[in-house]
Amino acid sequence: MSSRHDGRSPDEPRAVTIDRGFARQSDGSALYRCGGTTVLVTANVVDRVPAWLEGKGVGWLTAEYMMMPGSTSPRKERRADSRSTEIQRLIGRSLRAAVDTKALGARTLHVDAEVVDADGGTRTAAITGAFVAVADALRARLGPEAARAVLRDGVAAVSVGVVAGRELLDLDYVEDSAAEVDLNVVRLGSGGLVEVQGTGEGGTFSRAQLTALMDLAERGLDLLGEAQRRALGGDWPFG
Amino acid sequence: MSSRHDGRSPDEPRAVTIDRGFARQSDGSALYRCGGTTVLVTANVVDRVPAWLEGKGVGWLTAEYMMMPGSTSPRKERRADSRSTEIQRLIGRSLRAAVDTKALGARTLHVDAEVVDADGGTRTAAITGAFVAVADALRARLGPEAARAVLRDGVAAVSVGVVAGRELLDLDYVEDSAAEVDLNVVRLGSGGLVEVQGTGEGGTFSRAQLTALMDLAERGLDLLGEAQRRALGGDWPFG
Amino acid sequence: MSSRHDGRSPDEPRAVTIDRGFARQSDGSALYRCGGTTVLVTANVVDRVPAWLEGKGVGWLTAEYMMMPGSTSPRKERRADSRSTEIQRLIGRSLRAAVDTKALGARTLHVDAEVVDADGGTRTAAITGAFVAVADALRARLGPEAARAVLRDGVAAVSVGVVAGRELLDLDYVEDSAAEVDLNVVRLGSGGLVEVQGTGEGGTFSRAQLTALMDLAERGLDLLGEAQRRALGGDWPFG
Amino acid sequence: MSSRHDGRSPDEPRAVTIDRGFARQSDGSALYRCGGTTVLVTANVVDRVPAWLEGKGVGWLTAEYMMMPGSTSPRKERRADSRSTEIQRLIGRSLRAAVDTKALGARTLHVDAEVVDADGGTRTAAITGAFVAVADALRARLGPEAARAVLRDGVAAVSVGVVAGRELLDLDYVEDSAAEVDLNVVRLGSGGLVEVQGTGEGGTFSRAQLTALMDLAERGLDLLGEAQRRALGGDWPFG
Amino acid sequence: MSSRHDGRSPDEPRAVTIDRGFARQSDGSALYRCGGTTVLVTANVVDRVPAWLEGKGVGWLTAEYMMMPGSTSPRKERRADSRSTEIQRLIGRSLRAAVDTKALGARTLHVDAEVVDADGGTRTAAITGAFVAVADALRARLGPEAARAVLRDGVAAVSVGVVAGRELLDLDYVEDSAAEVDLNVVRLGSGGLVEVQGTGEGGTFSRAQLTALMDLAERGLDLLGEAQRRALGGDWPFG
Amino acid sequence: MSSRHDGRSPDEPRAVTIDRGFARQSDGSALYRCGGTTVLVTANVVDRVPAWLEGKGVGWLTAEYMMMPGSTSPRKERRADSRSTEIQRLIGRSLRAAVDTKALGARTLHVDAEVVDADGGTRTAAITGAFVAVADALRARLGPEAARAVLRDGVAAVSVGVVAGRELLDLDYVEDSAAEVDLNVVRLGSGGLVEVQGTGEGGTFSRAQLTALMDLAERGLDLLGEAQRRALGGDWPFG
Repeated sequence: MSSRHDGRSPDEPRAVTIDRGFARQSDGSALYRCGGTTVLVTANVVDRVPAWLEGKGVGWLTAEYMMMPGSTSPRKERRADSRSTEIQRLIGRSLRAAVDTKALGARTLHVDAEVVDADGGTRTAAITGAFVAVADALRARLGPEAARAVLRDGVAAVSVGVVAGRELLDLDYVEDSAAEVDLNVVRLGSGGLVEVQGTGEGGTFSRAQLTALMDLAERGLDLLGEAQRRALGGDWPFG
Repeated sequence: MSSRHDGRSPDEPRAVTIDRGFARQSDGSALYRCGGTTVLVTANVVDRVPAWLEGKGVGWLTAEYMMMPGSTSPRKERRADSRSTEIQRLIGRSLRAAVDTKALGARTLHVDAEVVDADGGTRTAAITGAFVAVADALRARLGPEAARAVLRDGVAAVSVGVVAGRELLDLDYVEDSAAEVDLNVVRLGSGGLVEVQGTGEGGTFSRAQLTALMDLAERGLDLLGEAQRRALGGDWPFG
Repeated sequence: MSSRHDGRSPDEPRAVTIDRGFARQSDGSALYRCGGTTVLVTANVVDRVPAWLEGKGVGWLTAEYMMMPGSTSPRKERRADSRSTEIQRLIGRSLRAAVDTKALGARTLHVDAEVVDADGGTRTAAITGAFVAVADALRARLGPEAARAVLRDGVAAVSVGVVAGRELLDLDYVEDSAAEVDLNVVRLGSGGLVEVQGTGEGGTFSRAQLTALMDLAERGLDLLGEAQRRALGGDWPFG
Repeated sequence: MSSRHDGRSPDEPRAVTIDRGFARQSDGSALYRCGGTTVLVTANVVDRVPAWLEGKGVGWLTAEYMMMPGSTSPRKERRADSRSTEIQRLIGRSLRAAVDTKALGARTLHVDAEVVDADGGTRTAAITGAFVAVADALRARLGPEAARAVLRDGVAAVSVGVVAGRELLDLDYVEDSAAEVDLNVVRLGSGGLVEVQGTGEGGTFSRAQLTALMDLAERGLDLLGEAQRRALGGDWPFG
Repeated sequence: MSSRHDGRSPDEPRAVTIDRGFARQSDGSALYRCGGTTVLVTANVVDRVPAWLEGKGVGWLTAEYMMMPGSTSPRKERRADSRSTEIQRLIGRSLRAAVDTKALGARTLHVDAEVVDADGGTRTAAITGAFVAVADALRARLGPEAARAVLRDGVAAVSVGVVAGRELLDLDYVEDSAAEVDLNVVRLGSGGLVEVQGTGEGGTFSRAQLTALMDLAERGLDLLGEAQRRALGGDWPFG
Repeated sequence: MSSRHDGRSPDEPRAVTIDRGFARQSDGSALYRCGGTTVLVTANVVDRVPAWLEGKGVGWLTAEYMMMPGSTSPRKERRADSRSTEIQRLIGRSLRAAVDTKALGARTLHVDAEVVDADGGTRTAAITGAFVAVADALRARLGPEAARAVLRDGVAAVSVGVVAGRELLDLDYVEDSAAEVDLNVVRLGSGGLVEVQGTGEGGTFSRAQLTALMDLAERGLDLLGEAQRRALGGDWPFG
């Protein structure tokens, strides 16, 4: 069976590197590179909550996602378009699934994901990298003990898809543009699914394909969890 | 096993009525009621395409989704918020999966979904109702023959979820607010999946639950397809 | 003397139907149809006042007016343009003339008029229908006694105009487009004039024409007051 | 019978001065003072028409109305609010009634009214002053002959109202704030009515009052027409 | 040596007139004319401070700068563009250098500069005129004693530039358009420099040219200080 | 004489590193670090010009400047505020001084400066880094020959200021916050001054201080020019 355009096998993810503390004014940050995709994620704790949570003693986590104009070729105008809106809602929901907002107290955790290079999978890169930035931010601001109370679990995300009838793990831009089906999966470190977002892009998918794609995604998520653990090393907050 | 708060069994959808032609200036329209939820969908053909499609001879379908301020209690300010943005993108993608934009030619099909009463499941109601409005709009503007060339398939959507550990079909607002997991499924009439959007809301879900929810959704989609066919009667465009 | 393009005599209004409670989450609502024009008006009481009224113990009534994109043929982009701004100010002033904002207390009455079908006279339809929605909302939220203290009087509105030199009552879209003069009149149930808005559209009008148009408008307003009374039946709040 | 707070009799307007050419870069301009109210109106011809008139060979006249922040005490934030929107539409309609847009050709006449001092009657001041600025702009740009073809008639506006039960001509701010009824009338020089905008402000008005107010307004308009004629002197474009 | 296009010598400024109290509702105002440039500046004291100064007992001075659409030929669309933003920040900083915001107390001084005629040097005209308006506003609102405590010093601004290789004082529009270098200098009455803003416009400048331009600017600022003193006469707040 | 809070002498700049090609989708890019300040600058050539240059055969260079929310502590909301507006205009003007827009042809050079870490001097860092990114972008897109025709000269920028009465080179955030005077200087590689922007921040400055600050700035600019040359190495486009 022929390999993919960059030589990977269908179930082979791109190489991941995670550079912690890249942004030096933020409470936590990670420069997350996955193949040709680069996302700079910062995490900051602010001692204030949105108006609708004031006086309730619980915190909030919110995310922004922005593509830098130079992250694509040709250059893309800077703007908060509907795609970004959808993505930043996904990032926020995904990270909140791993955070205990009661333990956080009346604080807001701001996750800001800046796409430096867009070569496919930027939203899943943002989520996977954000976990590392959030872990560092909580530890820096609250201390390791309290940070562990807030961060209940790991969380990572991966994209899989169907290209020319084949299920592939971790699509790059060339594959993503040609995909018939695109599926993003977000999963906690302990195994619970947080988000399953499958979309037929000019095609549809069967129940059997959904199952195959989910299997592939879970394999990728296992590997990403290991990459997060390696990056955090002795600062890994769990067990 | 106890029934739901409104007496339905777990796999029982709410009653659906579809009132075609409710808006009399539009090419097609449907007042779609599903239990306490009401969505007015209009569909209109405009002889113009977005700038990025000009001169390519293919058409486009785009959707807007708006909650009327009086559709919730208490009243909600009118605004295009990020949730609406996400929903109208979903409606657009779902309907485009059923439409042949090449056969449509250099035209735009505008789907406008106005939520009159919001009692859960408004986005899936919008999609299911939109199919009827689109079928009528295409037939009215292009004639039955050409309409059949453009509208390749039926499309419907349903929500399922996990509430207090039980998988339920077609959540109303009370159930939706309490759901641990929420899954929206969009499927073509011929059976292919178009969108699978599952979200853990303060909970997560297992692969087994994903399977059970998909089964439940497919049952609901069978019934919605029948409701669409009944509503269109002799104007049903397929087979 | 020849009749109008739809067979009506010059002083004959279009048929009016008022469907109360159409929107089921709102405190009060009315689906108001006048010939080919349909406006869905909701009325809701919110326990809050605008910033400039805080602490003064008086309430406010405010209105929004929006044309649904599918309410015209061809479809019209959704937007808050200057015409809508002008109309929603008119609706607000008109209804406030019938409401005792001191008796309302520190509450805001929100009137939302959504134009479903635009076939002329949408602003006057919105005002006449809003009266019914407001009466229902106040009774539902404050009880019949308090509602009567707040709603001091009936209010209705009608359009008249000069088309091809003839004074006509209740112009539809075709007539409105050809009108030399357009006059909207808002009147309380007890007879006092609230608004007289006459505009020469590519023509002007004499004092004699103003008098003839006012006579015609008052005839129409008598009939609309009866339609409102019929719609409210036993819930009619006056005498 | 007692006089008004500033000593005027009920049918006595405030003194008017019109300073032509105040703004030296504009095609035409007028600094219009009416008692304590000052409006600076500029008129400029631009060789371009709005998109919806392109290629039709007819022109357009459009108006903007803005209150300078320092025009009221206390200072008012600069913003295009709904009141300004309504007023600039009125100014535009009023002036267009006096202009032959076919004779204007594919040009836009921009009228900009900046309120320097707001002491009541700013919208009618803007219209009356705009006529002078427009006359000068057309003559300056097209020559006296062509200007006369474009400017078919004079136009002026005045406000009248009911204060403490008395009909008064040309209300200042103190009177306007206390008025039960406010009526703005726009009339062509040749006598045809262009706009009649009457509003009950916390009161209503009878047909008899409407007639009395119209009489008062027409008296004021006669005087304003003379002021315009005096200001233009030998440049008066009619007869 | 040849004179400039309007006959001035290189170090000769345009004639300045300052008409105090032109806007009659404002606490202070000045119609500032400098050759063909006219700026109407109003100054108003508001008993409120921006959110970030609340509770600190110190005041603020803020400025807005707006070109009236008719201030240029051809007419310019009204908008807050990036140039205006830059200019209003400059005006605000310049005036704050002359004001003791602690002595002002919890108040905001609003400076609004409206450009009536734009013939070069509008930003420096706005600053020089604003000083007079502010002096009058403070005296009117706080009395002469307190006003002197707030207004610590005079402030004026001038533009100089290099045109065709020659250093010129007070550029008009024709010269400004052709200038290789443009330098705006703001100076307190007591001699301290507040702002030096030099820009090569299609050219650059040497240290020697910077020195020559600064000398020229200081000469112009001496004359403008005298004009301000003449305008304020017995109300001059210093010495 | 005591050293600065970070041990530098008054005329000692912070260490500079320039990492070329950091953003891999852009035509050119530079990660510019100057002490604790980091700016990521991308440069991209787009084959299109702004509307007002269409058909003239000349190109344009425009800049955007944005602070990433995590670039400051505490986090700063993402927004295009008036300070950013002023800075991006400065960056654009500065780079245009080094570029021959006629030689560029009908293209736009987009410079995007993203502040990763804000520790003072971000605008001057953006300009100095942008030169490297622009040099790389032009060479990559046009080839070395044509790039040299477009890029006529080097350009760099530095900030100097007066803190506690001492003139200091290259202020960091702590110094900048305490500065009485702040001066930014932009200079071409060949020595011509492009921008001199001096501002008294709660203080003023004398002509003598201006001279001392300019001397200090020129010393810093010499060093920055060397850093740019080192970074570009064999790709240095001049002589």
